[in-house]
Amino acid sequence: MLDGLIERMLTGDKRATARLITLVENDEEKAREIISKIYPHTGNAYIVGITGPPGAGKSTLLDKLIRVAREEGKVVGVIAIDPTSPFTGGALLGDRIRMQRHSTDPGVFIRSMATRGSLGGLAKATADAIKVLDAYGCDVIFVETVGVGQIEIDIVKTADTVVLVTVPGLGDDIQAIKAGLMEIADVFVINKADKEGADATYFELSMMLDLEKERWERRGWRPRIVETVATTMRGIRDLWSAISEHREFLEGSGEIERKRQFRAEEEVKTIVSGRISRIVGEKLGEEEISSLIGMVVRREIDPYSAADRILEKALGVKV
Amino acid sequence: MLDGLIERMLTGDKRATARLITLVENDEEKAREIISKIYPHTGNAYIVGITGPPGAGKSTLLDKLIRVAREEGKVVGVIAIDPTSPFTGGALLGDRIRMQRHSTDPGVFIRSMATRGSLGGLAKATADAIKVLDAYGCDVIFVETVGVGQIEIDIVKTADTVVLVTVPGLGDDIQAIKAGLMEIADVFVINKADKEGADATYFELSMMLDLEKERWERRGWRPRIVETVATTMRGIRDLWSAISEHREFLEGSGEIERKRQFRAEEEVKTIVSGRISRIVGEKLGEEEISSLIGMVVRREIDPYSAADRILEKALGVKV
Repeated sequence: MLDGLIERMLTGDKRATARLITLVENDEEKAREIISKIYPHTGNAYIVGITGPPGAGKSTLLDKLIRVAREEGKVVGVIAIDPTSPFTGGALLGDRIRMQRHSTDPGVFIRSMATRGSLGGLAKATADAIKVLDAYGCDVIFVETVGVGQIEIDIVKTADTVVLVTVPGLGDDIQAIKAGLMEIADVFVINKADKEGADATYFELSMMLDLEKERWERRGWRPRIVETVATTMRGIRDLWSAISEHREFLEGSGEIERKRQFRAEEEVKTIVSGRISRIVGEKLGEEEISSLIGMVVRREIDPYSAADRILEKALGVKV
Repeated sequence: MLDGLIERMLTGDKRATARLITLVENDEEKAREIISKIYPHTGNAYIVGITGPPGAGKSTLLDKLIRVAREEGKVVGVIAIDPTSPFTGGALLGDRIRMQRHSTDPGVFIRSMATRGSLGGLAKATADAIKVLDAYGCDVIFVETVGVGQIEIDIVKTADTVVLVTVPGLGDDIQAIKAGLMEIADVFVINKADKEGADATYFELSMMLDLEKERWERRGWRPRIVETVATTMRGIRDLWSAISEHREFLEGSGEIERKRQFRAEEEVKTIVSGRISRIVGEKLGEEEISSLIGMVVRREIDPYSAADRILEKALGVKV
């Protein structure tokens, strides 16, 4: 069954592709089999991460970026990560629904992914979905996250080009988030640039970049700042050019290799830790783990010693 | 040296306490030693998680909650998690600076923590800092996060009472975030309730709760909704009462035990995965890992097979 699905996916069948993504998301064993089979067909897509605080208009921007990329004949993939429930899975947002109109275009594949309960679950699912879309034939894959949490940052920073979207006039918290994302952004977007305060935000960002000169000089790339009004297409083509420029820089300087090395490393790490939790679950069983945890709660042993026992029992590791 | 510090901490020395938190944050070996030594002195503090989207006014709210708790003579700890750089560490925000005025009060201990680069790093550091503050003698510990990312949610949901702060009139993204946090919230706060749209938000939340009736009936607790204007103290005492009410519910129903079991379990898991990454690093060494990753990048092996090799080499695990 898998071979048939993969074959259909490789010839551009969207339904087979969707099915494969669902499989890699939900089934550890199948994910392994699918990824090892499609792996030789991957490595062609260019990955663009798009992140920023809630309400910055990322989905609308993405909607327009898809349009521009399609005009150039690119096959486009989108992985939109929903900042939703760790318990019940994702929800489709208003903006996302708008974006879905591209779904009837055979050259656009859009997929929403929900935050998972398990550590590393989302990162692994995203990495696997990227590979499926890559093998499917996407030239460019956009990965959209709400850039506040650590996992979201971890995901987006594995992209080839990271676009950070902000808007004029945000509060204190948002400033801090921006500061945290400053270092991973290759292109800054000031969206809703027709709003009051856009100039101030532009000035602020430029100043921050001047202060951070040493850092980006070392990387060899001064992050671009682009002003957009996604709703009216203003600046969207400039943004697309800035992304292409960054791509040329990465490819010209050989930086792209370093990025891909980093991405592969993150991915392998994620698989390793996922596998270990499975081994622990299998070797100890729920009851044994829960009785050990009960001892921790009653202060009979401390959490570190409990961890030692688990490691010893599950993996034979003596600490 | 550690014994001396711990002794001073146990007699209420703030500087020793701060030093111990820094040690548990930065030094894996020392963390282990400190936690196992202070562990018998912990288990008394009540943990309140405060989360919500950026800009909801969480820090101002917290500032006022500290005041109310102090009026009751409680010793208060605060762990404020900065949504900042995974590379350079935390930044002190404007709101946080305001909160710092409590720092001169010997009954208040405030600590900022920065998001770390390593998976699980922040969760572990937070859990350890909670234990230090617990042993120090805090009656209540507030843990404040920006509730968007998975790790932030993971941290806050280990609290005894989870307070979700929102504000009237937020956009689409924020609605989704709220939906994701709905299930972990014990108390909802509509802050800035003097703003337009507060009634609509109240109505919306109540409706959501009605729809989710089955879920909270199973838990036995209908989440409270409190309207506040943190800047003027409006509703702050009601919020404090709602938190106390939830505490009484947890203690009366025995739910508190389940919560603490869950918290201990999350903690032990975090320690286990941290330890494993260290073992992998030690057993394989950077060069070997990086040459393996290079093979993944060149499509010579797929990431799953690379993970297998690492597990086999580092832990002798045959998959």
